[in-house]
Amino acid sequence: MKLKGIGEFPLIERLTEQLRDYGDSVVLGIGDDTAVFRSPHGKYLLATCDMLVEGHHFKREWISGEQLGHKALAVSLSDIAAMGGVPRYVLVAAGWPSQTDLEYAAGIYRGMGALAASHEVFVIGGDTVSAPQLILDVTVIGEMEKEPVTRAGAVVGDVFAVTGNLGASAAGLALLEAVLPPSLSTATGQALLEAHLMPLPRVKEASVLLEMGSLSAMIDISDGLASEVEHICKQSVVGAKIELSRLPVGEKTRKAADALGRNYLDWALHGGEDYELLVTLPGEKVPAVKTELARLGVDFTKIGKVTGAGQGVCFLDANGQTVKKVKKGYDHFSDYKHKD
Amino acid sequence: MKLKGIGEFPLIERLTEQLRDYGDSVVLGIGDDTAVFRSPHGKYLLATCDMLVEGHHFKREWISGEQLGHKALAVSLSDIAAMGGVPRYVLVAAGWPSQTDLEYAAGIYRGMGALAASHEVFVIGGDTVSAPQLILDVTVIGEMEKEPVTRAGAVVGDVFAVTGNLGASAAGLALLEAVLPPSLSTATGQALLEAHLMPLPRVKEASVLLEMGSLSAMIDISDGLASEVEHICKQSVVGAKIELSRLPVGEKTRKAADALGRNYLDWALHGGEDYELLVTLPGEKVPAVKTELARLGVDFTKIGKVTGAGQGVCFLDANGQTVKKVKKGYDHFSDYKHKD
Repeated sequence: MKLKGIGEFPLIERLTEQLRDYGDSVVLGIGDDTAVFRSPHGKYLLATCDMLVEGHHFKREWISGEQLGHKALAVSLSDIAAMGGVPRYVLVAAGWPSQTDLEYAAGIYRGMGALAASHEVFVIGGDTVSAPQLILDVTVIGEMEKEPVTRAGAVVGDVFAVTGNLGASAAGLALLEAVLPPSLSTATGQALLEAHLMPLPRVKEASVLLEMGSLSAMIDISDGLASEVEHICKQSVVGAKIELSRLPVGEKTRKAADALGRNYLDWALHGGEDYELLVTLPGEKVPAVKTELARLGVDFTKIGKVTGAGQGVCFLDANGQTVKKVKKGYDHFSDYKHKD
Repeated sequence: MKLKGIGEFPLIERLTEQLRDYGDSVVLGIGDDTAVFRSPHGKYLLATCDMLVEGHHFKREWISGEQLGHKALAVSLSDIAAMGGVPRYVLVAAGWPSQTDLEYAAGIYRGMGALAASHEVFVIGGDTVSAPQLILDVTVIGEMEKEPVTRAGAVVGDVFAVTGNLGASAAGLALLEAVLPPSLSTATGQALLEAHLMPLPRVKEASVLLEMGSLSAMIDISDGLASEVEHICKQSVVGAKIELSRLPVGEKTRKAADALGRNYLDWALHGGEDYELLVTLPGEKVPAVKTELARLGVDFTKIGKVTGAGQGVCFLDANGQTVKKVKKGYDHFSDYKHKD
């Protein structure tokens, strides 16, 4: 039997089921945004890694070294944020084709260094090997004092809410794959490309959410909103009612969808790589969080409700009707090379 | 300018020089076997990663899934051992071609799981992506109470000593690349292949060394003895006199060298991937350490002396004459694809 067609999550399940007999110091093992273990003297430590492979996750002609370095670190910082942690240390394992330009390689480390500095994290080690294509695996270690916020705590009656906007990264990817339509301004195109190539991990936003939100669950949106809602519902054993009309989709994303003849809701639900935070929290906490996040220039939008597990995961259109076909989020594994 | 020809260590130096302005909590950054940082409440935490890329570090037809999983974890455990640390947690980032056999993939996790269990470490997370060839990047996080033993503490007057035997892994690799010579027994061939395919990280041995050895420096032998001696001398600002006649090379390795018309000293000095420990310590500590390590079934051999930096790094033949040409150890980067 070949791996093709098994799907990322069933594959992980299958390969690691023997490994899940953890000791007492492990708070969270395989299956959340990060692993969590207790430090020798009590505090929580978080660890996560994300691998980017050239030709599968990026094309070198689309992304500068600086952008790639930024993105490779951003996706792991986003995982730490999604637990409510403070990122601290970074390891970078890099595989290099021998024909790589030194200047491109140096750009990767500059981009990573700039993002690291802005979050006060330190790149303290890694590995450097030769490889047939560019590979970056970035490990981030974080800390937190409070209990981490997992995917498994959502409570019936809470609401779902998201930071920022959805679908801009997918719009940027679509623009990379097409010629910029004449109806779109360069500035609009640029902003959407940037959303895809240089996502901003919501680390500060997560700390606001943690402090003010009485969060019951949190996850970062890496595979698309639909998929992340499913993850929370499965792990929390709850259902969801998501109102599509409430999804925060920016004007630029809508314009790009129009210009390319695409559906912006598709991008918002399944595009992935937005690296916004999806949380569940008591509805009455939303206004105060919204005010505080607005000070950081970031929206915070209620998009639906947590329901009982028996009600399943429902996406409702503007008329309150359940939308039948909300296909699954991008699966990094089974949709092999889909995202080239 | 292309990366080819720059060499692994100058490349790392060049790419990361901007990143080395660490905060107070970082004890050791880029440039030793592992990074070391202070845990929130005082204890030391260690982190290291090693990436293996199919076709560059292994060939699938040479190594079973179990062996590959074992080796991928062993090389990082060895780095933790080389600081005197206790490995605790593991992240596994894996890139999979879609045509990989599920059984081979499952074997990797079985092999890794078995080695993890024998060292009481837990695989707590990772990443799973598609890739054009098999890629494994294993991150290990370790702990230690005492000060870590770096490469930078060697003291003039101390002696150099190594655990186990040298060159067996290179002999195994040479056998993989050749047909088993008729003069070698299957058992000899098997033992050497195993040395290459399933190296044993010297974690327990390191803890004995740490307790009894008054170590001044320690490094694991991943690139070959000659290269590791250079690392210690450079970072400790000392010289070395290594007596080639003292190098511990097993009978099986010598036989294989004879049978293949190769020089076993070449393997011992430059073969790499032995994952033994090279230490510097006061000469009078050697006998007691030797006795204690013998209980674990592992040799411990004095191979030379730490001298002043002005005397450089010298390798002496059986007549005490300096050997002129001791070429550099294997460089994972500039010797591109050398080790296929």
